[in-house]
Amino acid sequence: MIVVMETTATREQINGVMARVKALGLGAHLSEGEERTIIGVVGSPLPPSLDDELEIHSGVERVVRITKKYKLTGWDFHPQKTRISVRDVVIGGDAVTVIAGPCSVESEEQTVETARAVKAAGASILRGGAYKPRTSPYDFRGLGRRGLEILATARKETGMPIITEVMTPSDIEAVAEFTDIFQIGARNSQNYLLLEEVGRAGKPVMLKRGLSLLLEEWLLAAEYVMAQGNPDVILCERGIRTFETATRNTLDVSSVPVIQGMSHLPIFVDPSHAAGKRALVPALALAGIAAGADGLMIEAHPNPDQALSDGAQSLTFQEFADLMPRIAAVAEAVGRSLPAAADIMRVPA
Amino acid sequence: MIVVMETTATREQINGVMARVKALGLGAHLSEGEERTIIGVVGSPLPPSLDDELEIHSGVERVVRITKKYKLTGWDFHPQKTRISVRDVVIGGDAVTVIAGPCSVESEEQTVETARAVKAAGASILRGGAYKPRTSPYDFRGLGRRGLEILATARKETGMPIITEVMTPSDIEAVAEFTDIFQIGARNSQNYLLLEEVGRAGKPVMLKRGLSLLLEEWLLAAEYVMAQGNPDVILCERGIRTFETATRNTLDVSSVPVIQGMSHLPIFVDPSHAAGKRALVPALALAGIAAGADGLMIEAHPNPDQALSDGAQSLTFQEFADLMPRIAAVAEAVGRSLPAAADIMRVPA
Amino acid sequence: MIVVMETTATREQINGVMARVKALGLGAHLSEGEERTIIGVVGSPLPPSLDDELEIHSGVERVVRITKKYKLTGWDFHPQKTRISVRDVVIGGDAVTVIAGPCSVESEEQTVETARAVKAAGASILRGGAYKPRTSPYDFRGLGRRGLEILATARKETGMPIITEVMTPSDIEAVAEFTDIFQIGARNSQNYLLLEEVGRAGKPVMLKRGLSLLLEEWLLAAEYVMAQGNPDVILCERGIRTFETATRNTLDVSSVPVIQGMSHLPIFVDPSHAAGKRALVPALALAGIAAGADGLMIEAHPNPDQALSDGAQSLTFQEFADLMPRIAAVAEAVGRSLPAAADIMRVPA
Amino acid sequence: MIVVMETTATREQINGVMARVKALGLGAHLSEGEERTIIGVVGSPLPPSLDDELEIHSGVERVVRITKKYKLTGWDFHPQKTRISVRDVVIGGDAVTVIAGPCSVESEEQTVETARAVKAAGASILRGGAYKPRTSPYDFRGLGRRGLEILATARKETGMPIITEVMTPSDIEAVAEFTDIFQIGARNSQNYLLLEEVGRAGKPVMLKRGLSLLLEEWLLAAEYVMAQGNPDVILCERGIRTFETATRNTLDVSSVPVIQGMSHLPIFVDPSHAAGKRALVPALALAGIAAGADGLMIEAHPNPDQALSDGAQSLTFQEFADLMPRIAAVAEAVGRSLPAAADIMRVPA
Repeated sequence: MIVVMETTATREQINGVMARVKALGLGAHLSEGEERTIIGVVGSPLPPSLDDELEIHSGVERVVRITKKYKLTGWDFHPQKTRISVRDVVIGGDAVTVIAGPCSVESEEQTVETARAVKAAGASILRGGAYKPRTSPYDFRGLGRRGLEILATARKETGMPIITEVMTPSDIEAVAEFTDIFQIGARNSQNYLLLEEVGRAGKPVMLKRGLSLLLEEWLLAAEYVMAQGNPDVILCERGIRTFETATRNTLDVSSVPVIQGMSHLPIFVDPSHAAGKRALVPALALAGIAAGADGLMIEAHPNPDQALSDGAQSLTFQEFADLMPRIAAVAEAVGRSLPAAADIMRVPA
Repeated sequence: MIVVMETTATREQINGVMARVKALGLGAHLSEGEERTIIGVVGSPLPPSLDDELEIHSGVERVVRITKKYKLTGWDFHPQKTRISVRDVVIGGDAVTVIAGPCSVESEEQTVETARAVKAAGASILRGGAYKPRTSPYDFRGLGRRGLEILATARKETGMPIITEVMTPSDIEAVAEFTDIFQIGARNSQNYLLLEEVGRAGKPVMLKRGLSLLLEEWLLAAEYVMAQGNPDVILCERGIRTFETATRNTLDVSSVPVIQGMSHLPIFVDPSHAAGKRALVPALALAGIAAGADGLMIEAHPNPDQALSDGAQSLTFQEFADLMPRIAAVAEAVGRSLPAAADIMRVPA
Repeated sequence: MIVVMETTATREQINGVMARVKALGLGAHLSEGEERTIIGVVGSPLPPSLDDELEIHSGVERVVRITKKYKLTGWDFHPQKTRISVRDVVIGGDAVTVIAGPCSVESEEQTVETARAVKAAGASILRGGAYKPRTSPYDFRGLGRRGLEILATARKETGMPIITEVMTPSDIEAVAEFTDIFQIGARNSQNYLLLEEVGRAGKPVMLKRGLSLLLEEWLLAAEYVMAQGNPDVILCERGIRTFETATRNTLDVSSVPVIQGMSHLPIFVDPSHAAGKRALVPALALAGIAAGADGLMIEAHPNPDQALSDGAQSLTFQEFADLMPRIAAVAEAVGRSLPAAADIMRVPA
Repeated sequence: MIVVMETTATREQINGVMARVKALGLGAHLSEGEERTIIGVVGSPLPPSLDDELEIHSGVERVVRITKKYKLTGWDFHPQKTRISVRDVVIGGDAVTVIAGPCSVESEEQTVETARAVKAAGASILRGGAYKPRTSPYDFRGLGRRGLEILATARKETGMPIITEVMTPSDIEAVAEFTDIFQIGARNSQNYLLLEEVGRAGKPVMLKRGLSLLLEEWLLAAEYVMAQGNPDVILCERGIRTFETATRNTLDVSSVPVIQGMSHLPIFVDPSHAAGKRALVPALALAGIAAGADGLMIEAHPNPDQALSDGAQSLTFQEFADLMPRIAAVAEAVGRSLPAAADIMRVPA
């Protein structure tokens, strides 16, 4: 950490900072330039808020943190890319993984039908919401436990692993009974106690990016999960909030290569929630794969016009089936692959 | 709700929308202009997501919602401004209310000392965090129940009501035992299950604005609390996330008059978290009062340089004492008042 | 245009709006619902600011514009996608077009060398800045007219058409003497007098998106050029300003399909300025093509470490040559093509 | 400047950076820590883009600039706050200055009437647009030279100095003939050639903040003006573009104290353009003064409902007259003053 003193800093102020650093058991190296003095702070570990603390000492202009705040999610202590096995599916390997399904689980028929359709088209994991966060308390909020049972039925029928969202610690036990992967939604991306409890539940966790989360903050949220001993975290970019209103959120496609430079965790793209409009989903899905994403999460529905939630962004089965070969083609163009539909049609015994 | 059809919409597409509206038991009025056709949808209540649903029908260009999504928080059903009594303090009346205290409760001495100092300067409610949300899992996270007990001691010593944050449903019972007002932090502003449970706990709730929350979304979050039968919600603007990095967040001071046009709920401003820097707190506090805020929440600490959290933005006692008369002066300039320090020094029997 | 009256609007207020609309020679249709009254305004053309004007009448809650503000750039009056021929190159056709070259023209050697290298790798148009907008007045600002002459030399040597930026009306004549395409930079995207004058100069214009431009505002800026009788406008997405600082700007890749739904104009992506970092350029370039962009603008430099401007984001020749086949592969995956390097090596007589 | 090397940086990479720094005639000081090596770069002046350049050398993780990029606008070389005299009015002194007038000059009657009304209420400078930047080419764009003449007439009638916008270099001469202060609008805030030319015109310049300008970039834009030998620059905050759409732009009231910490230049607030709605103007005006602004720019119009531009945000004369005493009261509350209307009613001989 580097403390840059103001040009007008007095000897006393400089000594004050040096003393404080030493009082914390850390080393302080003085470097006096012509214009200003700089103090290097060394020691390990540095208290996470040390920069904030030193910044308010009188005479200090700025404090620059050199070391990263995140650890478990970074490459430094984990030089291999994380691969996560969920039943037959490997996430984070050479193949890209497509997760698909309805926004909400509405009925057994709707869910099983969708599972069959997306699997036939090449998706390998089934998504579906049983507990739905809704901006308004007057909106449909999911079937709850009944929704989980329906997802399990769809898994039994198709062999697809399932992923579903958990919104509060008291639901973790019920969700854990059924799901293969926990999903933490954007609104809960900094619900730290939920992250910790889900980290202890012993199953992979997909962590969506919050609408206003910086990439470092996102990794620190993942750090809450990993600090519980759970190495299986998947990140999912789903758009950030910007001034642009033509899409529901702005898909920050750059986050894919940037996160890959920072972290060994797999990163997915969710084009459906970013776009908010069905017609834009294919272009964003393809862009995500071209940028290097390890997978996609896409909404599909037998009859989007009558979906109980987010129908506007759900693809029809036909649209989804048309998109998958294009995803496969782009994946190949960037040196990845999409498992052939046939390969993933085997229902495990 | 108004459905604007595309200029190229066919008769069949128009009929399709009309049919769907009627199938939902709603009225549909056709208005055919020279250039395009518009369908007015009437009925009450309109399903909250109806606009999304209709927007994806073929031939539809845009759907415009006329009625507001929020109800309990709006003026339509509650034409009087909400006043909330917390022990001796009235929030939302002519007087502005200053809440002050340390970011974190660190010790009994620190907390009681701060309570006495801010009360002497004119603050009427004590804040202090016992459970702290921290971006990094490696930061100090509060004293928990012991922190609540310390706050209660400070209340006993000074007579000031207290406010403290609750982060997860399972802590509500413990916090309710001690606090006078629940605080919901920005990161939990869309943690809907927490909002509902805190809404049922029978005490006033201060809801901070999330970093990327639109004003309507903020009111809908408050609606989750109010829908549980709890009318005592206080909103608190604490900055939004924008491209500007000179402050920690951008204080959206306009939210004060805009919210006051939308809702009867009291609205506060938190200059400390918005600024992130002690030197900026006074200007933002004064701006908030000038814009019409019903109160302020300000951090103060006996020794900010050594605070365990957010010291960079905490005022010293002297700085706080210097600021209060200026707040009083601006309050008077805009037709409000600040209770005289003497008035609020009475410790209730 | 639809005027939504407040629920409390009086008969007199409603009549006031009706009268104002009629005074402007427009039609007003009254529609009285149970809860509120709505006034439809018809007539053509509607004054562009009519919505703002009506919105402030007493009793008016909101005004909703139905018709688009942009005309020449929209599909309504131009149902064919625009194709622009620049010497041998066709922009906006099935093939994607790669524009490449140094940020700044620094010397004849550097420019010609770069032109040869990018052409050999498959680029078809040469970029290079002779007049450079720089955030600080103390930065290198380009070679001016000498830079234009160098670009012309590079064109002569390679046969590649050239594009270069013009920053102020008084430079248009000089730039027009040399360039094949005018570039308007992001900072000048709403410099309307420049847009008009460049619109009259009789050559194609590439209009970069301003950092805070909404898509409709971008099309309206293009409208300034087209309103001068110049149909040959190319849009170029180069990132918007958001809270995220990991990249210099946030590439809004969704703007590609959204613009294509609004406008017939070709749209390019500039991954170099969005990323601000060389390592991210390939991922963003591929994402842009996958999203459907008609072309890319990429910076390349013989020795980026010593570039006089924006070296941090310039590819080396080797990096550029490695990227081009990947661009070709993604282009084919989405049903486009990249002209083979051989095809574009013919120097016109 | 500090160059932070990666933990994995090799000796050769470190030497490479050292060599490059020395080749530029600068000093390089090596500091080898346990975890990583840091290189301090000293010398004066540092090339403005040196940080970008060094950042791309292999082995470099990050470059941290210590010295500020702006000079003339900063306190370092100008420790006195700038005061600007415009006829009888002093800007940047103890008194706050209110600039008021119509958005556009529409007629002599409208302009003179407005000038009299705002002067009677206490405004000291008259604003009015003769050349108007409009998002759409189909909007009213001002009376041009005739508008300037009308402003001069209003000045003669009332003795108020005038301020009006200039949009392009070729208009500077005409505007200079009439105006007392040049205004550069938000859209032209990085139109560097315009800034330079207006800097040479020998009159004070008010520089509005661009919608996406960081504070440092804003000062660098002012630096373009000052570098021409013109010390009289006034900054004006008028809102930035954020995700919030309840106001036209988000007034960044924090920019007032932050800029005052960075620069000696006076800073104003324009509540009218930020709000975009008349009802919000008073709250934002008062907030600006409370935050410490040196003045306000407010739109007023004899009949806002029929204004040719931006009527939605213009105050009526009555609203303006009601607001001024409140501005005076807040100014006094924060230790400033507003010149009494009587004081400024003297028409200079």
